Amino acid sequence: MSENTKNQIILGIDPGTQITGYGLILVEGHNQKPLDFGCIRPPKECTPAEKYLAIFEGIDALIKRYEPTAVSIETQFFYKNAATALKLGMARGAALIASAKNKIPIYEYAPKKAKLAVVGNGAASKEQVQKMIQLLLKLATLPEPQDAADALALAICHAHTSKFKALL
Amino acid sequence: MSENTKNQIILGIDPGTQITGYGLILVEGHNQKPLDFGCIRPPKECTPAEKYLAIFEGIDALIKRYEPTAVSIETQFFYKNAATALKLGMARGAALIASAKNKIPIYEYAPKKAKLAVVGNGAASKEQVQKMIQLLLKLATLPEPQDAADALALAICHAHTSKFKALL
Repeated sequence: MSENTKNQIILGIDPGTQITGYGLILVEGHNQKPLDFGCIRPPKECTPAEKYLAIFEGIDALIKRYEPTAVSIETQFFYKNAATALKLGMARGAALIASAKNKIPIYEYAPKKAKLAVVGNGAASKEQVQKMIQLLLKLATLPEPQDAADALALAICHAHTSKFKALL
Repeated sequence: MSENTKNQIILGIDPGTQITGYGLILVEGHNQKPLDFGCIRPPKECTPAEKYLAIFEGIDALIKRYEPTAVSIETQFFYKNAATALKLGMARGAALIASAKNKIPIYEYAPKKAKLAVVGNGAASKEQVQKMIQLLLKLATLPEPQDAADALALAICHAHTSKFKALL
Protein backbone atom coordinates (compact mmCIF):
# COMPACT_ATOMS: atom_id res chain seq x y z
CA MET A 1 0.00 0.00 0.00
CA SER A 2 1.49 3.38 -0.90
CA GLU A 3 1.79 6.30 1.51
CA ASN A 4 -0.98 8.07 -0.40
CA THR A 5 -3.72 5.49 0.09
CA LYS A 6 -3.31 4.61 3.75
CA ASN A 7 -4.07 6.86 6.71
CA GLN A 8 -1.38 9.33 7.57
CA ILE A 9 -0.50 11.27 10.69
CA ILE A 10 1.37 14.43 9.78
CA LEU A 11 3.38 16.56 12.21
CA GLY A 12 3.81 20.13 11.01
CA ILE A 13 6.63 22.10 12.66
CA ASP A 14 7.30 25.85 12.57
CA PRO A 15 10.67 26.16 14.36
CA GLY A 16 11.78 29.30 16.15
CA THR A 17 14.26 30.18 18.87
CA GLN A 18 11.57 31.53 21.22
CA ILE A 19 8.47 29.62 20.08
CA THR A 20 8.30 26.42 18.03
CA GLY A 21 4.78 25.75 16.76
CA TYR A 22 3.54 22.21 16.12
CA GLY A 23 0.37 20.75 14.67
CA LEU A 24 -0.66 17.12 14.20
CA ILE A 25 -3.39 15.99 11.84
CA LEU A 26 -4.83 12.59 10.97
CA VAL A 27 -5.51 12.19 7.26
CA GLU A 28 -8.18 9.64 6.33
CA GLY A 29 -8.75 9.77 2.59
CA HIS A 30 -9.84 13.35 1.92
CA ASN A 31 -10.67 14.04 5.56
CA GLN A 32 -8.28 15.77 7.92
CA LYS A 33 -8.78 15.71 11.67
CA PRO A 34 -6.78 17.70 14.21
CA LEU A 35 -5.00 15.53 16.78
CA ASP A 36 -3.03 18.13 18.71
CA PHE A 37 -1.46 21.53 18.24
CA GLY A 38 0.37 24.09 20.34
CA CYS A 39 3.88 25.30 20.88
CA ILE A 40 7.14 24.55 22.62
CA ARG A 41 8.20 27.65 24.52
CA PRO A 42 11.48 27.02 26.40
CA PRO A 43 11.63 28.87 29.75
CA LYS A 44 13.34 32.26 29.47
CA GLU A 45 15.86 31.37 32.16
CA CYS A 46 17.25 28.53 30.00
CA THR A 47 20.66 28.88 28.39
CA PRO A 48 20.57 28.89 24.55
CA ALA A 49 21.75 25.26 24.45
CA GLU A 50 19.02 24.25 26.93
CA LYS A 51 16.45 25.97 24.69
CA TYR A 52 17.51 23.90 21.68
CA LEU A 53 17.45 20.79 23.86
CA ALA A 54 13.88 21.66 24.94
CA ILE A 55 12.82 21.87 21.27
CA PHE A 56 14.55 18.56 20.53
CA GLU A 57 12.93 16.82 23.53
CA GLY A 58 9.52 18.40 22.86
CA ILE A 59 9.43 17.18 19.24
CA ASP A 60 10.83 13.79 20.28
CA ALA A 61 7.99 13.42 22.85
CA LEU A 62 5.33 14.39 20.27
CA ILE A 63 6.71 11.83 17.81
CA LYS A 64 6.75 9.08 20.45
CA ARG A 65 3.17 9.94 21.51
CA TYR A 66 1.51 10.27 18.09
CA GLU A 67 3.85 8.22 15.86
CA PRO A 68 3.50 10.49 12.82
CA THR A 69 4.13 9.04 9.37
CA ALA A 70 5.63 12.31 8.10
CA VAL A 71 7.08 15.59 9.34
CA SER A 72 6.35 18.79 7.39
CA ILE A 73 8.61 21.76 8.07
CA GLU A 74 8.89 25.25 6.62
CA THR A 75 11.57 26.00 4.06
CA GLN A 76 13.43 28.87 5.61
CA PHE A 77 15.10 31.48 3.47
CA PHE A 78 14.09 34.84 4.87
CA TYR A 79 16.38 36.21 7.55
CA LYS A 80 17.01 39.61 8.99
CA ASN A 81 20.71 38.79 9.11
CA ALA A 82 23.19 35.93 9.35
CA ALA A 83 23.19 35.92 13.17
CA THR A 84 19.41 35.37 13.13
CA ALA A 85 19.86 32.63 10.54
CA LEU A 86 22.44 30.88 12.73
CA LYS A 87 20.04 30.89 15.72
CA LEU A 88 17.10 29.77 13.60
CA GLY A 89 19.33 27.02 12.19
CA MET A 90 19.97 25.71 15.69
CA ALA A 91 16.21 25.60 16.47
CA ARG A 92 15.49 24.02 13.10
CA GLY A 93 18.32 21.50 13.60
CA ALA A 94 16.73 20.46 16.91
CA ALA A 95 13.45 19.62 15.14
CA LEU A 96 15.21 17.83 12.27
CA ILE A 97 17.43 15.75 14.58
CA ALA A 98 14.41 14.61 16.65
CA SER A 99 12.63 13.60 13.42
CA ALA A 100 15.66 11.83 11.91
CA LYS A 101 16.36 10.03 15.22
CA ASN A 102 12.86 8.54 15.03
CA LYS A 103 13.28 7.78 11.30
CA ILE A 104 10.28 9.93 10.27
CA PRO A 105 10.52 11.16 6.67
CA ILE A 106 10.82 14.95 6.55
CA TYR A 107 9.31 17.16 3.87
CA GLU A 108 9.69 20.88 3.49
CA TYR A 109 7.44 23.52 1.98
CA ALA A 110 7.86 27.22 1.33
CA PRO A 111 5.52 29.46 3.38
CA LYS A 112 3.77 30.53 0.14
CA LYS A 113 3.07 26.91 -0.71
CA ALA A 114 1.51 26.28 2.71
CA LYS A 115 -0.69 29.38 2.36
CA LEU A 116 -1.71 28.30 -1.13
CA ALA A 117 -2.67 24.85 0.16
CA VAL A 118 -4.80 26.22 3.00
CA VAL A 119 -6.27 29.48 1.67
CA GLY A 120 -5.79 29.09 -2.08
CA ASN A 121 -3.66 32.25 -2.09
CA GLY A 122 0.11 32.22 -1.54
CA ALA A 123 0.01 35.81 -0.30
CA ALA A 124 -2.74 35.23 2.31
CA SER A 125 -2.42 36.99 5.69
CA LYS A 126 -1.66 35.05 8.85
CA GLU A 127 -5.22 35.76 10.05
CA GLN A 128 -6.69 34.29 6.85
CA VAL A 129 -4.58 31.16 7.38
CA GLN A 130 -5.87 30.84 10.97
CA LYS A 131 -9.50 31.23 9.88
CA MET A 132 -9.23 28.70 7.05
CA ILE A 133 -7.56 26.16 9.36
CA GLN A 134 -10.41 26.63 11.85
CA LEU A 135 -12.88 25.88 9.03
CA LEU A 136 -10.95 22.99 7.46
CA LEU A 137 -10.30 21.23 10.78
CA LYS A 138 -13.71 22.19 12.28
CA LEU A 139 -12.12 23.76 15.35
CA ALA A 140 -14.38 25.50 17.91
CA THR A 141 -12.01 28.48 18.12
CA LEU A 142 -9.18 30.02 16.09
CA PRO A 143 -6.00 27.93 16.41
CA GLU A 144 -3.60 29.75 18.72
CA PRO A 145 -0.82 30.77 18.92
CA GLN A 146 -0.03 31.82 15.36
CA ASP A 147 2.96 29.47 15.31
CA ALA A 148 0.69 26.48 15.95
CA ALA A 149 -1.62 27.61 13.11
CA ASP A 150 1.41 27.89 10.81
CA ALA A 151 2.45 24.36 11.81
CA LEU A 152 -1.05 23.02 11.08
CA ALA A 153 -0.90 24.76 7.68
CA LEU A 154 2.35 22.91 6.94
CA ALA A 155 0.73 19.60 7.91
CA ILE A 156 -2.30 20.30 5.69
CA CYS A 157 0.00 21.37 2.86
CA HIS A 158 1.80 18.03 3.07
CA ALA A 159 -1.54 16.15 3.13
CA HIS A 160 -2.35 17.84 -0.21
CA THR A 161 1.01 17.25 -1.82
CA SER A 162 2.35 14.06 -0.26
CA LYS A 163 3.06 12.53 -3.62
CA PHE A 164 6.47 14.19 -3.37
CA LYS A 165 9.36 12.25 -1.98
CA ALA A 166 11.16 13.22 1.22
CA LEU A 167 13.47 16.17 0.68
CA LEU A 168 15.38 16.41 3.92
CA MET B 1 36.99 22.04 45.11
CA SER B 2 36.56 24.55 42.29
CA GLU B 3 36.66 23.63 38.63
CA ASN B 4 40.06 25.30 38.35
CA THR B 5 41.91 23.16 40.86
CA LYS B 6 40.70 19.65 40.01
CA ASN B 7 41.53 17.73 36.84
CA GLN B 8 39.44 18.60 33.84
CA ILE B 9 38.57 16.80 30.62
CA ILE B 10 37.74 19.31 27.92
CA LEU B 11 35.98 18.50 24.66
CA GLY B 12 36.66 21.06 21.93
CA ILE B 13 34.22 21.07 19.01
CA ASP B 14 34.55 22.78 15.63
CA PRO B 15 31.13 22.17 14.03
CA GLY B 16 30.57 22.09 10.28
CA THR B 17 27.99 20.65 7.91
CA GLN B 18 30.51 18.41 6.13
CA ILE B 19 33.17 17.89 8.83
CA THR B 20 32.86 18.42 12.59
CA GLY B 21 36.25 18.40 14.31
CA TYR B 22 36.62 17.25 17.90
CA GLY B 23 39.51 17.18 20.35
CA LEU B 24 39.63 15.91 23.94
CA ILE B 25 42.34 16.86 26.41
CA LEU B 26 42.99 15.95 30.02
CA VAL B 27 44.14 18.91 32.11
CA GLU B 28 46.19 18.05 35.20
CA GLY B 29 47.38 21.28 36.78
CA HIS B 30 49.45 22.98 34.09
CA ASN B 31 49.81 19.81 32.04
CA GLN B 32 47.59 19.00 29.10
CA LYS B 33 47.43 15.52 27.61
CA PRO B 34 45.61 14.58 24.41
CA LEU B 35 42.95 11.90 24.92
CA ASP B 36 41.41 11.70 21.47
CA PHE B 37 40.86 13.84 18.41
CA GLY B 38 39.43 13.45 14.95
CA CYS B 39 36.30 14.33 13.03
CA ILE B 40 32.72 13.34 12.43
CA ARG B 41 32.18 13.12 8.69
CA PRO B 42 28.60 12.05 7.90
CA PRO B 43 28.38 9.85 4.77
CA LYS B 44 27.69 11.85 1.61
CA GLU B 45 24.60 9.77 0.81
CA CYS B 46 22.91 10.93 4.05
CA THR B 47 20.01 13.36 3.89
CA PRO B 48 20.72 16.74 5.56
CA ALA B 49 18.68 15.72 8.65
CA GLU B 50 20.62 12.43 8.88
CA LYS B 51 23.88 14.43 8.76
CA TYR B 52 22.83 16.57 11.73
CA LEU B 53 21.72 13.41 13.55
CA ALA B 54 25.18 11.88 12.89
CA ILE B 55 26.85 14.94 14.47
CA PHE B 56 24.48 14.76 17.45
CA GLU B 57 25.08 11.03 17.93
CA GLY B 58 28.84 11.36 17.40
CA ILE B 59 29.21 14.07 20.04
CA ASP B 60 26.85 12.19 22.38
CA ALA B 61 29.02 9.05 22.06
CA LEU B 62 32.24 11.02 22.75
CA ILE B 63 30.67 12.57 25.87
CA LYS B 64 29.50 9.18 27.14
CA ARG B 65 32.96 7.66 26.51
CA TYR B 66 35.18 10.39 27.97
CA GLU B 67 32.80 12.17 30.37
CA PRO B 68 34.22 15.66 29.73
CA THR B 69 33.80 18.31 32.42
CA ALA B 70 33.42 21.08 29.84
CA VAL B 71 32.67 21.62 26.16
CA SER B 72 34.50 24.39 24.29
CA ILE B 73 32.99 25.52 20.97
CA GLU B 74 33.86 28.20 18.47
CA THR B 75 31.90 31.46 18.49
CA GLN B 76 30.60 31.69 14.97
CA PHE B 77 30.02 35.01 13.33
CA PHE B 78 31.62 34.82 9.91
CA TYR B 79 29.35 33.56 7.18
CA LYS B 80 29.42 33.74 3.43
CA ASN B 81 25.67 34.27 3.48
CA ALA B 82 22.52 33.61 5.50
CA ALA B 83 21.88 30.22 3.85
CA THR B 84 25.35 29.07 4.96
CA ALA B 85 24.65 30.43 8.45
CA LEU B 86 21.38 28.47 8.62
CA LYS B 87 23.18 25.21 7.71
CA LEU B 88 26.04 25.89 10.10
CA GLY B 89 23.44 26.64 12.78
CA MET B 90 21.92 23.20 12.31
CA ALA B 91 25.34 21.52 12.70
CA ARG B 92 26.19 23.70 15.69
CA GLY B 93 22.76 23.01 17.23
CA ALA B 94 23.46 19.27 16.97
CA ALA B 95 26.67 19.66 19.02
CA LEU B 96 25.01 21.96 21.57
CA ILE B 97 21.98 19.68 22.06
CA ALA B 98 24.23 16.64 22.65
CA SER B 99 26.21 18.65 25.23
CA ALA B 100 23.11 20.08 26.97
CA LYS B 101 21.44 16.63 27.01
CA ASN B 102 24.44 15.33 28.99
CA LYS B 103 24.44 18.43 31.22
CA ILE B 104 28.02 19.41 30.25
CA PRO B 105 28.69 23.14 30.68
CA ILE B 106 29.40 24.78 27.31
CA TYR B 107 31.86 27.63 26.77
CA GLU B 108 32.50 29.51 23.57
CA TYR B 109 35.56 31.29 22.26
CA ALA B 110 36.21 33.38 19.19
CA PRO B 111 38.68 31.85 16.69
CA LYS B 112 41.13 34.68 17.42
CA LYS B 113 41.02 33.86 21.12
CA ALA B 114 41.79 30.17 20.46
CA LYS B 115 44.74 31.14 18.22
CA LEU B 116 46.00 33.54 20.84
CA ALA B 117 45.83 30.83 23.51
CA VAL B 118 47.75 28.30 21.40
CA VAL B 119 50.20 30.36 19.33
CA GLY B 120 50.24 33.65 21.22
CA ASN B 121 49.03 35.42 18.09
CA GLY B 122 45.33 35.88 17.26
CA ALA B 123 46.15 36.15 13.56
CA ALA B 124 48.18 32.91 13.39
CA SER B 125 47.78 30.71 10.32
CA LYS B 126 46.03 27.35 10.53
CA GLU B 127 49.40 25.65 9.95
CA GLN B 128 50.96 27.52 12.89
CA VAL B 129 48.07 26.38 15.09
CA GLN B 130 48.63 22.77 14.03
CA LYS B 131 52.39 22.95 14.72
CA MET B 132 51.93 24.53 18.15
CA ILE B 133 49.33 21.95 19.14
CA GLN B 134 51.75 19.20 18.11
CA LEU B 135 54.37 20.77 20.40
CA LEU B 136 52.05 21.52 23.32
CA LEU B 137 50.43 18.08 23.35
CA LYS B 138 53.68 16.25 22.40
CA LEU B 139 52.07 14.55 19.41
CA ALA B 140 54.24 12.38 17.15
CA THR B 141 52.73 13.95 14.03
CA LEU B 142 50.74 17.05 13.07
CA PRO B 143 47.14 16.77 14.27
CA GLU B 144 44.92 16.05 11.25
CA PRO B 145 42.49 16.98 9.83
CA GLN B 146 42.59 20.75 10.29
CA ASP B 147 39.14 20.64 11.92
CA ALA B 148 40.46 18.34 14.67
CA ALA B 149 43.41 20.70 15.26
CA ASP B 150 40.97 23.61 15.54
CA ALA B 151 38.90 21.63 18.06
CA LEU B 152 42.04 20.86 20.12
CA ALA B 153 42.89 24.58 20.03
CA LEU B 154 39.45 25.36 21.48
CA ALA B 155 39.97 22.79 24.25
CA ILE B 156 43.42 24.25 25.08
CA CYS B 157 41.96 27.77 24.99
CA HIS B 158 39.38 26.75 27.56
CA ALA B 159 42.04 25.12 29.75
CA HIS B 160 43.83 28.51 29.82
CA THR B 161 40.74 30.57 30.49
CA SER B 162 38.39 28.31 32.43
CA LYS B 163 37.86 30.89 35.11
CA PHE B 164 34.99 32.18 33.00
CA LYS B 165 31.49 30.91 33.64
CA ALA B 166 29.51 28.92 31.10
CA LEU B 167 28.15 31.13 28.34
CA LEU B 168 25.85 28.84 26.41
